[in-house]
Amino acid sequence: MRPRPDVSVQAGHLGDGLPAEPQAEELVDTLMQSPGLRIERIVSTGQATPEGDWYDQVWDEFVLLVAGAARLRIEGEEEDRAMQVGDWILLPAHCRHRVEWTQSTPPTVWLAIHYQTAEDETAEA
Amino acid sequence: MRPRPDVSVQAGHLGDGLPAEPQAEELVDTLMQSPGLRIERIVSTGQATPEGDWYDQVWDEFVLLVAGAARLRIEGEEEDRAMQVGDWILLPAHCRHRVEWTQSTPPTVWLAIHYQTAEDETAEA
Repeated sequence: MRPRPDVSVQAGHLGDGLPAEPQAEELVDTLMQSPGLRIERIVSTGQATPEGDWYDQVWDEFVLLVAGAARLRIEGEEEDRAMQVGDWILLPAHCRHRVEWTQSTPPTVWLAIHYQTAEDETAEA
Repeated sequence: MRPRPDVSVQAGHLGDGLPAEPQAEELVDTLMQSPGLRIERIVSTGQATPEGDWYDQVWDEFVLLVAGAARLRIEGEEEDRAMQVGDWILLPAHCRHRVEWTQSTPPTVWLAIHYQTAEDETAEA
């Protein structure tokens, strides 16, 4: 038998450990992180961005809706974007956006990839 | 009304344009690319790594199974890893692995995130 690789292979399931009840806050699990890149599972149970607030991020974000449903609003657009399972969106740094609504039960699950490009600021995201 | 952001927001659906019939090759769509990072949708319709071959990649890869089913083999492990929808695995650079089997119909859909860490070689992935 060949030796096992000397690197550990991490693995998981995005549906593991989902809350049975809506939570006060979104749940964020970092699946991997390296300089300039962070992959997260985010679980929303009804959370939305507070009225009048906007996300304004220093890194780019690629986000995939894995379960549930949501509505996003991009600043300057006239309508919300409905997000269903399998929908992805690439939000460049400083693209101001809001989460208008997330499905609570069953929970809404996102895979979020935060990354820093050469154009982005060097601040931590 | 506020002006539209001067950045374009790209968006899509991972289930768009899936082939109705098995294909000769895997279909690979690059959803975003920047230095050191590439996000792809990969559609497999029964493809597997040829007998005796191993993937040996210069970049790390995080892969999520979005639809379908598959079996992977990591070199040095004694059994295949069954991959179901929602399963993810992080394959470090040079972690030799094979795709033993993919579901053909309906197709198997992967979200693959290829990235280069400080430890990886500088070669293009």
